[in-house]
Amino acid sequence: MEWKDYDSATCSIARTLEVVGDRWTVLVLRDLANGVRRFDDLASHLGVARDVLTRRLNVLVDHDVVEKVPYREQGSRTRYEYRLTAAGQDLRSVLLAFREWGDQHLSGPEGPPMATVHADCGGKVHAQLVCERGHTVERGETRLVPQPGARLSA
Amino acid sequence: MEWKDYDSATCSIARTLEVVGDRWTVLVLRDLANGVRRFDDLASHLGVARDVLTRRLNVLVDHDVVEKVPYREQGSRTRYEYRLTAAGQDLRSVLLAFREWGDQHLSGPEGPPMATVHADCGGKVHAQLVCERGHTVERGETRLVPQPGARLSA
Repeated sequence: MEWKDYDSATCSIARTLEVVGDRWTVLVLRDLANGVRRFDDLASHLGVARDVLTRRLNVLVDHDVVEKVPYREQGSRTRYEYRLTAAGQDLRSVLLAFREWGDQHLSGPEGPPMATVHADCGGKVHAQLVCERGHTVERGETRLVPQPGARLSA
Repeated sequence: MEWKDYDSATCSIARTLEVVGDRWTVLVLRDLANGVRRFDDLASHLGVARDVLTRRLNVLVDHDVVEKVPYREQGSRTRYEYRLTAAGQDLRSVLLAFREWGDQHLSGPEGPPMATVHADCGGKVHAQLVCERGHTVERGETRLVPQPGARLSA
């Protein structure tokens, strides 16, 4: 069997893209991960149309990636802010993978705009492939093994 | 300074999304990474309209993520196949991050459809955050530090 013999949609990548496979959605997740939580702040920082932002946030809430939490400032009506759920926090690995690639391939002459560092020691952080037996794994040293959840193409 | 004080577009995530921030594009990269290289095979496996596929491939070629290589089968005219460049190979970390999240959060009762294993030992592979000083870093143990390439919002 080759990859193309397997159903394209029965794939964790395809499934994830159904939730976050859109540029605005990833930027919303990035801002939420960095503490921008209020609708007006998100709309203004991202420069996104409010109806587009509403739709993206609703999809994320529907998939339990983001939760909507009421808050109220003195003298104002109740408003909502948005926070990553535990599943949403897990998407930080996607954000970091995007960031690393952009740092490496799309930085201007001044270099990457932000560094991700270990809060404890200040050392720069990157994602390293490791296997469950503790080996460090380089690109090209992996292969895919079909599991019971795999489906062949129709 | 907070995150929202920095320009949203001067960000390696935003820049990467200009190249790969689209569902079909990521699926094309996934198939190329798994050895599906010919236009007809990609169109058929992905179930994507041919004009959409052409546009996505052209963007990837324009950004040097994919290269177009001529081939010719006996008795046929010259055709082209598509291969990941070195920069395209680096996007495997994005694909793995998507895969891991889908495996964890969107698998059905039968579990993930594919496992990514270390070709040498067969152990399952995952991405682990490490810092340059060799510490294993957990989610939430990172922070962002602005670099000279950072820009404040207008």
